[in-house]
Order: sequence, then C-alpha cells, then structure tokens
Amino acid sequence: MTNTWWQDSIPALDETARNAALTRQTVLTKPAGSLGRLETLAVKLAAMQGRAEPDLAHPWISVFAADHGIAAAGVSAYPREVTLQMVANFAAGGAAICVLARHIGARFEVIDVGVAGDTSAWPDVVQAKTVNGTASFLEEPAMSEATVDSALAAGREAVARAVAAGADCFIAGEMGIGNTTSATALACLWLERDPEAMTGAGTGLDDAGIRRKAGVVRNALALHRTMSADPKSALARLGGAEIAAMAGAYVAAAQARLPVIVDGYISSVAALAATRLNPGAAAWFLFGHESAEKAHRDVLAALGGQPVLALGLRLGEGSGAAAAFPVIQAACRLHSRMATFAEAGVSDREA
Amino acid sequence: MTNTWWQDSIPALDETARNAALTRQTVLTKPAGSLGRLETLAVKLAAMQGRAEPDLAHPWISVFAADHGIAAAGVSAYPREVTLQMVANFAAGGAAICVLARHIGARFEVIDVGVAGDTSAWPDVVQAKTVNGTASFLEEPAMSEATVDSALAAGREAVARAVAAGADCFIAGEMGIGNTTSATALACLWLERDPEAMTGAGTGLDDAGIRRKAGVVRNALALHRTMSADPKSALARLGGAEIAAMAGAYVAAAQARLPVIVDGYISSVAALAATRLNPGAAAWFLFGHESAEKAHRDVLAALGGQPVLALGLRLGEGSGAAAAFPVIQAACRLHSRMATFAEAGVSDREA
Repeated sequence: MTNTWWQDSIPALDETARNAALTRQTVLTKPAGSLGRLETLAVKLAAMQGRAEPDLAHPWISVFAADHGIAAAGVSAYPREVTLQMVANFAAGGAAICVLARHIGARFEVIDVGVAGDTSAWPDVVQAKTVNGTASFLEEPAMSEATVDSALAAGREAVARAVAAGADCFIAGEMGIGNTTSATALACLWLERDPEAMTGAGTGLDDAGIRRKAGVVRNALALHRTMSADPKSALARLGGAEIAAMAGAYVAAAQARLPVIVDGYISSVAALAATRLNPGAAAWFLFGHESAEKAHRDVLAALGGQPVLALGLRLGEGSGAAAAFPVIQAACRLHSRMATFAEAGVSDREA
Repeated sequence: MTNTWWQDSIPALDETARNAALTRQTVLTKPAGSLGRLETLAVKLAAMQGRAEPDLAHPWISVFAADHGIAAAGVSAYPREVTLQMVANFAAGGAAICVLARHIGARFEVIDVGVAGDTSAWPDVVQAKTVNGTASFLEEPAMSEATVDSALAAGREAVARAVAAGADCFIAGEMGIGNTTSATALACLWLERDPEAMTGAGTGLDDAGIRRKAGVVRNALALHRTMSADPKSALARLGGAEIAAMAGAYVAAAQARLPVIVDGYISSVAALAATRLNPGAAAWFLFGHESAEKAHRDVLAALGGQPVLALGLRLGEGSGAAAAFPVIQAACRLHSRMATFAEAGVSDREA
C-alpha cells in the first residue's frame, strides 16, 4: 500500500472464466439468448468471481452519512437535521434500506463519515467522522484534501469489514441532505455539462427550486472549476464526505475483487469519482437501477452502465441496488443450476 | 358455479384498503414518491389483499404444457418433441423456472394439459390432458370447444390447489413448441392487428422463418376469423390447450382474490383471453416483465399492464414473472415494514 492506495492496481476480470461461462450458456436447456440480460449478468459475475458457475449469497450494504454546507443555500426539500435523524432511523432498522437488507439477507451498517452532530449515542453507527458537515462550496472548498483522504479511507475500511465477513458483493448507499447538489456539481465538472441540463428535483424540489439549485451549481463551478482538475481536488471542493467515502469503497472493492452493485445518482457520481481515481475500478461495477433523477442517465452512459431496474426510484440509501440484488442473484442461480441439454435429454435446435 | 363458471362474478379491489395504503405511503420515512413504482405496486397489493399493509410470502407457480399441430408447419426453431422433453426437465427440477421457483421459495407444479405423448412416467407431472396435441389450425380448428372447456377447468383446478396450499400469488407459465404462433394469431384477432406487424422470432427464428410464420398466421386468420367472435371459439380455433388453461387459471384466480403475476408474451395473450372471458379479471393482474418478443408491448398496452422488469427475456415458463417476484415482494415489505416519520422522529419536509 502506498499513501495513495487508491492508485494501487486493480485486477482485470478473468477472461478464462468468462469464456467458460459463455460456453456453459450455450448448453443450458433454453433457447440461446432467451434469458436476455440475466445471461450477460451471469457471465459478468463469472468473470468477476473467476469461475464458470458464479453465485451471490452474501451481500453487504454500507450506508455512508454526511452533511453538506450547501444545504443552507435552500437546495433541498428537507432541512439538514434530517441527515442525523435518518442515521437514527438506520440504526433502529426503520429506513427503506434496512427493510431491503433484511429482504435480501444482507449485512448492513451505517457509517458516520461527516454528519453535523453527534451520532455516538447509537452504538450500531460506525464512527468514522471526517468532518462535522462540510462547508458551503459557494464560499470555499467543501472540505480539505486531508478530509478527502480520511473519507476515502473510511470507504476502504468498510470494504475491509465486508471482505472479513465473507461478503460476495458490495452495495454502498448514502444519506446526506443536499448531496444531489454536490453530485450534480461533480457530474457537470467531469462530464462537461451545463448545470441547467443536469440539475434535478432531488428529494422533491419544485421547478423554482430546481432553477435555484442549478444556479448554485453554476456558481460553485465558476468558483472551483480551475482548481478541480485532480479528482481529489474536485472531491474536496465540490464533493461530500459520503461521496468521497463511496468512491474510496468502490476502488477498494475493485482492488479486493469484490463485485459492486452501484445504486442511483449519487452512487453513480461516486462511481465516476472512483474511475477518476483509478480507471480499473469500472470493470467491477454492476448497476442496480436507473434513477428518476434526471441526470442519472448521462452519468450511467459515461460509465457504460446498464441498470437492472428502471422503476422510478430516487431515494438513495442503496435502495435501488438492494432491490436489484435478487434479480442479479437469480441470474447467477439460473446460470449455475439449470440443467444442460445433455443432462436433461432435451434436443437442442437444429444447427 | 354455473357450467360457464368463468362468467361468475369477480370481486372488485378493496378501495378502502387502497386509500389506507395511500395514506400510509405519505408517512413513511422517505420523500413522497421516492420509491417510484415500488409504491404503486404496494398500494395495488393492498387493494388486492384488502389490508393497508400487504405482504407476499407464498408464491405458487403452475406451468401448463401442451403441443401444437401448427408446429408441423415449421414455425419454431425447435422440434415438437422438445415439449415432452422439457416436461421431463420440469419434473426433474432442471428447467429455468424450477431454479427460479427455488430462488423465490415458490411451490411449483407442471401440468400436462395437452402434450403429444405420455407424461405419466413422471409422478410429479399433474395429469390433466385434454388433447394429445392440437390439430393444425391451417386445416381445422386446433381443438373442440369441449376441449377448451376441459383446459379452462384444468387452469381452475390449478388455482384451487394453490388456494388450498395457502398461496398468496399465482404465476402461470407455459411450455409448448409452436405456441408463439398460436398466441400471435389470437393477438392479431383480438387486437385487430396485421400478422406481419405482430409476428416475432419466438424461440429464435431467423427473418425468413419469421416471414413464413407471419404467413401461417395470416392464413389461419383467413380460415377462422369469421367463426371466432366468441372468445371460447377463438381459443378452440387458434389457441392451444396451455393457453386456454392459463386463461382459465387467471379467471379463477381473480374469482378467488388471488393476485396474478403475468409472465411474458404467451401469458399476456392468455391474460387477454381471460379478460375476454370475464373483463373483471384484469383488476387482479400484475405484470412481471416486458418480453423481447416484439408484439408483447402491444398486448401489454391493450391490458394496461406496466411490467416490473424489462431485461429482454423471451423464455416463457413463467420465468419473467418469477424473476420479478422478489421486487414485488420488496415493494410490499418496504410499504409494510418501514418506520413512519412519527415512529422514527424524522422531520417531514416543510408543507
């Protein structure tokens, strides 16, 4: 490990296993191609897991929570206090992602990487605070580069816990009032897009609110763009601690050969950050869903991501990735457990 | 029960429960609408189950198998014998739907309603044969109306078994080489569409095969259209025993207040048949996926169906419905198990 651990090499996928999986697909008792995307998902998992017959059985969910100084600019439908309140809800098991974690049999944890306020009263909250809420990036960088380093490390530590627990896929979620504004600023920076084209409703802004939020993003980019060429600088100036932590987690997961299911808009921007930190990370991403947040499609396109679900979700927390998990799991099980033509004595089509 | 039992009344959905569910949606700890289609699915299940907090825990899958005389016209990429061989594969647990049934914890059965050949060697195959494969509808009706009556009853009996076992949702699947040709003829008849616009690749025809198949559909419609005004006549002339059985099952499920998850193209044409037999059935349908078979979108539109998944599946067997089941189940669990703002002490947005 260097002190820029995120630049350490990421393994390529296993092409031998991929080819073995493609061969297996041709002999399963179904018309070729008839399971559509479930086939391509299984083949990709085979290449990730280095075996012709992949499985997913031990999903892990880490939700990273942090506050954003930019929330004071009126860019969210909710007050900043909701981040802290939702951390309590995660700890108590009442949030959407908690229900989904139980539904899919996932290990679940919530990590305070930058909440404004004390979360230590809840023993189940992992304490990894890097900042007590970021500063407003309308005035100064959201955080220091040293804080980004700490947040990246918090993501890496979450992956280390997942690996130690035997996880076979990693889902990152986030909670942070104001974080679609931060994510949109980063997406506009990296994809070279116009804020008005990329700014959406977040948790539920009306049209006037969206215009105000787009103006905030425009002003933030005007202030920080020239100093944001380096991905870590960009994260420091326009990001959030939870977005940096997710980026760190995604790079660390890829380094550990742990498949990632990326969630929605914020998560995909963090995935984009991860590929800026280390391009090799992209090979280890699956994409759970296409969010209702309007710029998500552009971010997915930049990542080459094909989402499993498109159900109009826009909650975050990892919810779309967790909802997609059973479908991806089904893809593996079909691939690995169906009978072959020879085993079943079924005629294949005439060649 | 009359001797036209499928015309017996179908209960309406419970609007009181629907409204209670809509109210509950407004107090769950998430931005309003942020779970997208998962919210509407849960609310619909609430109206189906007559309770504000629905759940799905006991899915049931019945796969209906039958042969088609039209298969002799070269309309499929596979020989007719594959129907019988696949029944053996269902009985042995090796088919895609068997893997998915285990994945979702479903009770599974395969029913011979019209296979050409003896399936009684496999004790797990439910024997309800109505015909030893249909006749070619290029020459004569595929089957008699008495055979349709028997097939409808076979569907109804499957639902009775599901109800007796405590099932809380019903998935019908099908196996029958040649059955996309039969389904396309019925879809063209009922939706008043052109065969060339509706005929697709089925299990894997090339372009020349699709053109030949469209010609078969055109000729079949020319022979039978004027005698097919009544839905049972249409099923007899152009249908298949498995399609009639599925239609009977769908009507019977609706009569028993048992939610149905409709699978792909063949299943959706059977659902269309069910609504022709009894329009009230439509209220009890959820739609698992949008198939890669090209006319499925038109059939879904005619049914007002919004599929949960769109992954390019075109296998049948109930596979798309089973793959969608965990997502629909997640919708119920989120709705029924998430904390409310009051329970969690989380601030709702400013009104």
